[in-house]
Amino acid sequence: MFTGLSAFPLTPVSETDVDESAFFDLVARLDRAGVDSIGALGSTGSYAYLTREQRRRLAEVAVRAAGRTPVLVGIGGLRTVDVLRHAEDAQAGGASAVLLAPMSYQPLTDEEVYDLYADVTATLSVPLVVYDNPGTTHFTFSDELHGRIAALPRVGSIKIPATPADPQAARERVEQLRARIPSHVTIGVSGDPAAAGGLLAGCDAWYSVLGGLWPQACLALTRAAQRDDPDTASSISDDLAPLWELFGDYGSLRVVSAIAEQMGLVGAPNLPRPLQGLPDGARHRVDQAVRGLAPILARH
Amino acid sequence: MFTGLSAFPLTPVSETDVDESAFFDLVARLDRAGVDSIGALGSTGSYAYLTREQRRRLAEVAVRAAGRTPVLVGIGGLRTVDVLRHAEDAQAGGASAVLLAPMSYQPLTDEEVYDLYADVTATLSVPLVVYDNPGTTHFTFSDELHGRIAALPRVGSIKIPATPADPQAARERVEQLRARIPSHVTIGVSGDPAAAGGLLAGCDAWYSVLGGLWPQACLALTRAAQRDDPDTASSISDDLAPLWELFGDYGSLRVVSAIAEQMGLVGAPNLPRPLQGLPDGARHRVDQAVRGLAPILARH
Repeated sequence: MFTGLSAFPLTPVSETDVDESAFFDLVARLDRAGVDSIGALGSTGSYAYLTREQRRRLAEVAVRAAGRTPVLVGIGGLRTVDVLRHAEDAQAGGASAVLLAPMSYQPLTDEEVYDLYADVTATLSVPLVVYDNPGTTHFTFSDELHGRIAALPRVGSIKIPATPADPQAARERVEQLRARIPSHVTIGVSGDPAAAGGLLAGCDAWYSVLGGLWPQACLALTRAAQRDDPDTASSISDDLAPLWELFGDYGSLRVVSAIAEQMGLVGAPNLPRPLQGLPDGARHRVDQAVRGLAPILARH
Repeated sequence: MFTGLSAFPLTPVSETDVDESAFFDLVARLDRAGVDSIGALGSTGSYAYLTREQRRRLAEVAVRAAGRTPVLVGIGGLRTVDVLRHAEDAQAGGASAVLLAPMSYQPLTDEEVYDLYADVTATLSVPLVVYDNPGTTHFTFSDELHGRIAALPRVGSIKIPATPADPQAARERVEQLRARIPSHVTIGVSGDPAAAGGLLAGCDAWYSVLGGLWPQACLALTRAAQRDDPDTASSISDDLAPLWELFGDYGSLRVVSAIAEQMGLVGAPNLPRPLQGLPDGARHRVDQAVRGLAPILARH
């Protein structure tokens, strides 16, 4: 389950509500495209901003919409007690796996994070993906800590931040982590601009923001890397460079939100305030980039 | 209301519950000590980890326990809609002011933070303290943004992070910010080790973690700075250096939690998991430091 393309759809929200019908369609679209798994309620799915009840319902909607595609459900929260409740709800809703980032307000120690994973995995009946995302959690995993957590029962994969741009450095990064973790635990790259490099460096999976919106292009990139065709994988990633630049400037969430609006997949606004959609100038840049990418998208 | 010593008590919690009775006593103790205001549900009060209902009740308890001392209540949350609800509850509970930090999961833009404060102040009937705490919110205010927000109606004070250790640099820091904000908006320093330096550099208030536990010593420091007695203020701060070192090593929250336990003011554990109390080695260091400080505390 934790290999290939894992696609992370948006959760379209209004000020107080969630657009479950648009969310259903976003997930169903990924199933039809043939992605390897679907990551519901990831960072791109705004899990951190939603109530327990909203998350419980969305997990069920995702599983229904995903058909036979396995669904990973994000269970993160600031308190262990909330994480345990989200885990219970996700499993009851039919999640094939759960995804857990060590969200923080007060900075967490290594022991606190280890114990969080120990407490949660002790109660799980489905596998867990360790979600290493320092940009949102402000917690930095050491490889030593990754190794200890990966040895816990039911840990199936680690979602790591972007691998280094240099291919040799990327390979070393993946090998270094691999040496610390059990062989059944896969490594998945995130940070879409690093996806081709990460897969070619030996990552087993791509946990992908863009995959939640443009699954075909991301599948083409993933399949090329999987069949050991580095030129095709890199060339697809290079084609998408205008998008990677926008991700860097505005954050991937705001950019995919703007594109999804433009494609008519979600209404506007669709991000949880205080988060806002892109301002007009940025939207114009996104429109131009998407127009420029049309021939490339048509190919996949 | 936004001058002098503002003392921030702990909120003692268990895995799912809050010890309201211990919290009442912590707050009443600060009122008896004569602090200038009480900051309930600040970072030290673990606001970010509590439910709306817990926060609503704790605001009421704090106001009851505080007698005539004004109570500031923390209203932060990841979503604007939640912040508005907390503001409503705090005001209904009798808060004299509210305290708002721009909590984040996805990194926030300046415009998003400005609009958050604009949305919230538009609904308030009590003044608001802007809570600038990059260590927990991961948002960094520019002085330009501080100036725009401070000009909003009902903004009464800015709680800034530690001022620089060098006295001249500290004065420059405070003057720089002062030049950007309306004259009725006060500046309060936080980061307890910087308190004496911040007050002597011109800050109007000290938003204090240690003040929530040892109000007398902190009042002595504050009053010395207020009567322009830099030697006494600095010497009290220097006496407390062993504590400042522990704050740096373990975070002020975990250290005051351990001391409050030792003093019998709160039970154990009292922090919201995944946060944990200090491990034994650290507790031993804290015990030793507190024993060493006993003669100093006895003086105040």
